[in-house]
Parts: sequence; structure tokens; C-alpha cells
Amino acid sequence: MGMLSGYRVLDFCSFVSGPTCTRLLADMGAEVIRIERPDKKKGSGPYCGGERTVDLGLMRGKKSVTLNAKDPEDFAILQKLIKTADVIVENFRPGVTKRMGISYEDVTKIKPDIIYTSISGFGQVSPYKNRGAFDIIAEAMSGFMSITGEKEGKPVRAGASIADIFSGLEAAYGTACMLLNREKTGKGNHLDVAMLDVMFAVCNNPVTQYLNTGIVAQKIGNEHPQDVPWNDFPTADGIFIIASARTNTFVKLCEVLGCEQYIDDPRFCNDDVRLKNKDACHEIVRSYTSKWKTADIIEALNEAGVPCAVINSIDEACRDESILARGMVATVSHKTAGTYQLPGSPMKFSEDPIKLTKGSPILGENNREIFGGLGMSKEEIDALLAKQAKVRTFFKEYALE
Amino acid sequence: MGMLSGYRVLDFCSFVSGPTCTRLLADMGAEVIRIERPDKKKGSGPYCGGERTVDLGLMRGKKSVTLNAKDPEDFAILQKLIKTADVIVENFRPGVTKRMGISYEDVTKIKPDIIYTSISGFGQVSPYKNRGAFDIIAEAMSGFMSITGEKEGKPVRAGASIADIFSGLEAAYGTACMLLNREKTGKGNHLDVAMLDVMFAVCNNPVTQYLNTGIVAQKIGNEHPQDVPWNDFPTADGIFIIASARTNTFVKLCEVLGCEQYIDDPRFCNDDVRLKNKDACHEIVRSYTSKWKTADIIEALNEAGVPCAVINSIDEACRDESILARGMVATVSHKTAGTYQLPGSPMKFSEDPIKLTKGSPILGENNREIFGGLGMSKEEIDALLAKQAKVRTFFKEYALE
Repeated sequence: MGMLSGYRVLDFCSFVSGPTCTRLLADMGAEVIRIERPDKKKGSGPYCGGERTVDLGLMRGKKSVTLNAKDPEDFAILQKLIKTADVIVENFRPGVTKRMGISYEDVTKIKPDIIYTSISGFGQVSPYKNRGAFDIIAEAMSGFMSITGEKEGKPVRAGASIADIFSGLEAAYGTACMLLNREKTGKGNHLDVAMLDVMFAVCNNPVTQYLNTGIVAQKIGNEHPQDVPWNDFPTADGIFIIASARTNTFVKLCEVLGCEQYIDDPRFCNDDVRLKNKDACHEIVRSYTSKWKTADIIEALNEAGVPCAVINSIDEACRDESILARGMVATVSHKTAGTYQLPGSPMKFSEDPIKLTKGSPILGENNREIFGGLGMSKEEIDALLAKQAKVRTFFKEYALE
Repeated sequence: MGMLSGYRVLDFCSFVSGPTCTRLLADMGAEVIRIERPDKKKGSGPYCGGERTVDLGLMRGKKSVTLNAKDPEDFAILQKLIKTADVIVENFRPGVTKRMGISYEDVTKIKPDIIYTSISGFGQVSPYKNRGAFDIIAEAMSGFMSITGEKEGKPVRAGASIADIFSGLEAAYGTACMLLNREKTGKGNHLDVAMLDVMFAVCNNPVTQYLNTGIVAQKIGNEHPQDVPWNDFPTADGIFIIASARTNTFVKLCEVLGCEQYIDDPRFCNDDVRLKNKDACHEIVRSYTSKWKTADIIEALNEAGVPCAVINSIDEACRDESILARGMVATVSHKTAGTYQLPGSPMKFSEDPIKLTKGSPILGENNREIFGGLGMSKEEIDALLAKQAKVRTFFKEYALE
């Protein structure tokens, strides 16, 4: 069934942040209905089975209806649909929903207890609210990029769109809390999430440190500010990670590497001195690890209880034993592509476990089901879809770019 | 009040992932009680007002009681406390709660509808469940690090502990959904979150791409796989970000930079050719931006509607106009430190807004309140605390390292 089953979510989202929020709601069993332009363009690839792979991942488990909010007849249907909804999620630029007639204020007039979740780059109220924002912009302005990257290199963004994904997840958590509160109080609510704020909050530790000590965190590559040895290290055939937090782990490491002479070395014999002699310690560890093959040293260190890790490429991660054992590669159905694969949910519940079965919808896949549920006859739906097929102007002006 | 007010959460967490989950529950108004070793050691700094800054950030809004689960008398009090709880959150290594007598199975015997949230590196059931895990290990094994970093550089981890933070946020979302479901069904539930799974799911897009097309994403620094120009660019006094997704933005960019001759250049005149000529396009943009001061080009590009960003350091982010305007720097109270500052919550609700007022607790700050609430007399509490002050062995063996 799913813990959010019975709730209807209208999804007015594009890009990644909003669709991530509704993906999380869909995973939990909510009925998520994407409201899409009848003339929606697919955007850049790569493609599989006629769909963008980014959509295959993001839109799983959702439904799709086509409606043009600028067309009066479609807008009337949209209003009926809103009356049946529990939640609206949107990630337009601030102001766009007002022009469309579906702002929080508009919607509360016909559905007073609506739960309404907005995600934007800088928030509904911000000196920058009119600026466009993408993931990298929130990563850069929040301070996050300034602490990410090699010591002597450039600040770099995360390889996944973490500002989008964190914002979607934060919004999903807030939405679940608003639904819980509505069950008790009957009250609606409006959540305003800004990607910049979210990434600033992700920097909780360095920000709190700066605000209370004045210490400004810097890029340190794969090192740890306190713990040594903790870094990437070379092997004969690659690199890997050692994360050794305390002296007892350093002792085990030296035993595996066959360099017990450093265990009692006054430069390395406790946590404090190892931190002071970080570079020397890392250099010595390097000189030993470089003689091993990656697979062999990983096995030996795990055997000895020294935290370590291979740096998997994306294809290697998809074949990881634990990933596969925990069902983290799921297979879902798709109307035109048959089936396809994607990452499973990392939320493993003992009761009501999440089971991904349905992939992304094709454009308008659920028109007849949803419009029929609003009381429209087959003839009315036929006429609506025929009109949509003809008219191809729609709400282009609301696109974010 | 807070949307989760009325719920009592017992927090058996250390490090970052678990405390992040309970921080999010506390932000939302839940009563979060940390169960801490009477002889808890503080760990590494920096410090402010006698507390680690990492704890000032993570433990805000929580309460603290001291109990030693290995002492029979303390354990009996813990059992009483568990009967009053709605939620337990723990991030021990799998197996430790069983040895402590507080596993999900143990707890359901005295509190059948408990909501129990576990976070670990690899999960309660995994071929790697006995291995230690830190943030960097999940980042490395999930594939995330392999796509993060400069093109020719090393794979790097995110500068914030995003595997911990994502896991805590995912767990908080799951916990809210379990609470919502319990309100309807009366049923308890156990959520098992693995940091490796979470980071693999964060790689939703590259993983879905690989699984369905075979294309393995690579590190591309600050570039975008489809959009050009999109990168960091030099100025006369630093570097900054341009994120230009479409030709109409490229046109505006050329107008600002004063290089309109490239607008109709066959190498750059549409999205497809700009992608094919990415390096040449970036090189030309660089040659122009390098003549500007950062502040001037940011202003000019924002004026023209070209998405761009300064790369703020942590201290600069704390002074950002939007961050300050949205109340993202909060001041909270602390028993011994007076007040201190930390990042606010990025969840801005129209009803029941989050107001951070209370900072982190000192060790055992809420002993008398919580133990008194269980029916213990002043004399009984005095005796308990006197015993705790004497005995300093406690459950050290359960420490994660």
C-alpha cells in the first residue's frame, strides 16, 4: 500500500529539485499526478525507449495528465482537479504560479486545507527572487563549493545535483510533516524551500564553526580535519580510501602494511602527534600501499578492521555486493519501453516496505483515468484531447528558461 | 508549537548521520532526548563555550539525560523511558543494540507500536554489515566520488559530510511517514537506512543512465554534460560561475561581455554546436571575463538575466544578503555558553513556522526533568546521579570505534 497511499499530489515541477520531492512522495505510495504541457518538449538526452534517462529516474511511479493552464476550459478542469488534491508541489520561479492562477493564495480559495510546497533557487521572499538558479549556483553561493576539491585545485561542485536533491528531500520531509499536522488540526500550510538556504544548512558544521570561532573551513581534498591517516592512497593499479580515526586503527594498519616500526614512532604514536605530522604519515602510508593491488589491500584491511573503501565508478557501484543484496537496483515497467532499471529506495521498512514497480509515465498516460475520475464523459475527454492535439501554444511563457 | 510537538524521540546517536535525523525531528518540535554515557568524552574540537562546535550545530533543540545501559538500575529506568517514547533513533553498528538489549525486537516487547529508525554504513542486513563506515566510505563506494572533481584531477569527496546528512534527512522523512501511518493504523515500524544505499540513490541520474544506456558518467569539474557555456571562469580578481543553459542566454552573455561577433558564429549559434565546440566556447568566454572584476561581472550578468554566481567562502556565505534576509543565521541559548549562532532551518512554513531558540544541551542537562517525569523522587534521582558520578566504566564497549 505505502505509507502515503490515499494522498493525491499534483506535481507542477520541472528540472530536478521539485521532481525529486514528488518522487519521494510517490515512492511512499502517494498518487502523484504530473500536470504537463500538451506540447511538452523532451529536452536533451541520453534517451532510452523514447524517454530521457533523467526522466526515467525522476518520474518513476508518477502519473501524467496534459493540461494547458492558459486555456480557460483546461483551467476549469485543473480547478476541479485541485479540489481533489491533498498536496501541490511546484518549483517555478517565484511569481509564476500567481500569473498562472495557481498560487497558494489562489488555491486556498477553492481548497482551504491544501498542503502547498514550493521550491526555488532563493525562496519566495528574497532579494534574489527574480534570478534564475541552477544546482551549481546554490552550491557556489552557499559556501559548499569553497570547501570541496583538492587542496591546490579549484573549488568544484558535487558530481550529482545535490542542491536539487537535498532541496527535494527537505521538501518531502516538510510535506510529510504538514500532512501529519493536517490530520490533527485540519489546517493547510505553505512550505517555501530555497536551494541556497538548503545548501547553507548542509554546511551546518563549517558554518557553526565559523560563526562561533571565526575559523573558516577550506578545501582539503580527501583528508579529514582531525583524523590521520585519512585520505586517498595509491596502489599498484589504482587508488583507494583509508579512513583511520584513532591510534588503535593506525596500529592495525601498520600491522597489515608490515611497517610496525612506526607504531611507537613519536611522530605517530597518538592522535595529536599524527595530526601534527599528517603529511609525513600520509607519505609513509603511500610508500607501502603503492606496492599492493587494490583488491588485495581492501581485503586485508577489512579483515583487520581498518575502515577503507574502493572508489567505485558508477558501473562498478551498480555491481556492488551490498547494493545488489539490498535490492538497490530495481526493475520497473514502462508503457512504451517495456521495463527498465533504476536505483531502488534506500528506505527499508519492516512494515509497508517500498516496492518500486511502475516506471515513469509517458506524456498524458493517465488522462482518461484522471479526467474520468472528475466526472468527465468519454466524449468530453475525446474532445479535450483532440483540442490539445491541435493547439500547440500552451504555457511556454512559464518555462523557467 | 511545531508540527511534531507531542512526540517523544529517544536519540541513541553519535557522529553525524543519526544526530542529523534527530536534529530535523527537533527542529519540527519533537521532544528529542539524547541518552548519553555519564562518562561521555567530548572528542576533538574546535570548541566554543566548552562545547564542540560540531555538537553546537547538531544537537540544538535536544535534551540530554545520562544513563548507562549496562548498569541494571539504569537499564530499568531506560525501559521505563522507552515506554513513554514514540520514536527511537540509533546509528550503532548493526548488532550493538541487540547486545545492549534495546534492539527493535527487544523494544517492541515493551512498546509494541514504537517507531524505530536505524542508520548504519551498509544496513542491518548486508554482506558488509560488520565493517565500520564513515561518510567518505559511502561517498567512495557509491560511485559518487568517481564523478566529483576536476577532469584531470583525483576523485574527491564533498566538503560537507553529505552521506551522513543525506542519510539523516532520508531517515527523518521516513520517520515522519511512519508516524503519520501510526496515527492511522496504530502500527509500529522499523526503518533501516544504509549510507551506501543513500549515496547510490543520490546518484539517481548517472545510475539510471548507466543501467539503461551503458554510458558511465565521469568527473567533469564544474562543466555541465549538455549545456555550454557552463563552468567556472576567471576574473581579474578571482573566479566565478556562469550557468548558461540555452542560446538565448548565450546571446545575452555575449552582449554583456561585448563579444557580439560570436552570437552568429557557426560554432556557437545553437545548443548543439556549442556542445560540440565546448572548449573553444569556454576559452573565448574566459578571455573576456578575465578583464572584469568579479563583483562587476556578477552585477552585469544578473542585470541581463544570465545565471551566474560568486563562489562564496563560508564566512562570505554567512554574510550573503539572501541568507540574512531569510533568517538563515539563528541565535540560540545555551546553558553554559549563553547564546551562540548557527544555520537556521531551510524549511519556511506559513503556519507553525520553525523558530530555533534552544541550543545544544550540556551532558545530563535534563536528568531531573525527565527522570522526575518517570515518577522518580528527588532522593532517587540524587542517588542515581551520585552513583553515575562515581562509576565511570559504562558502555564504552559500544563505541563505534
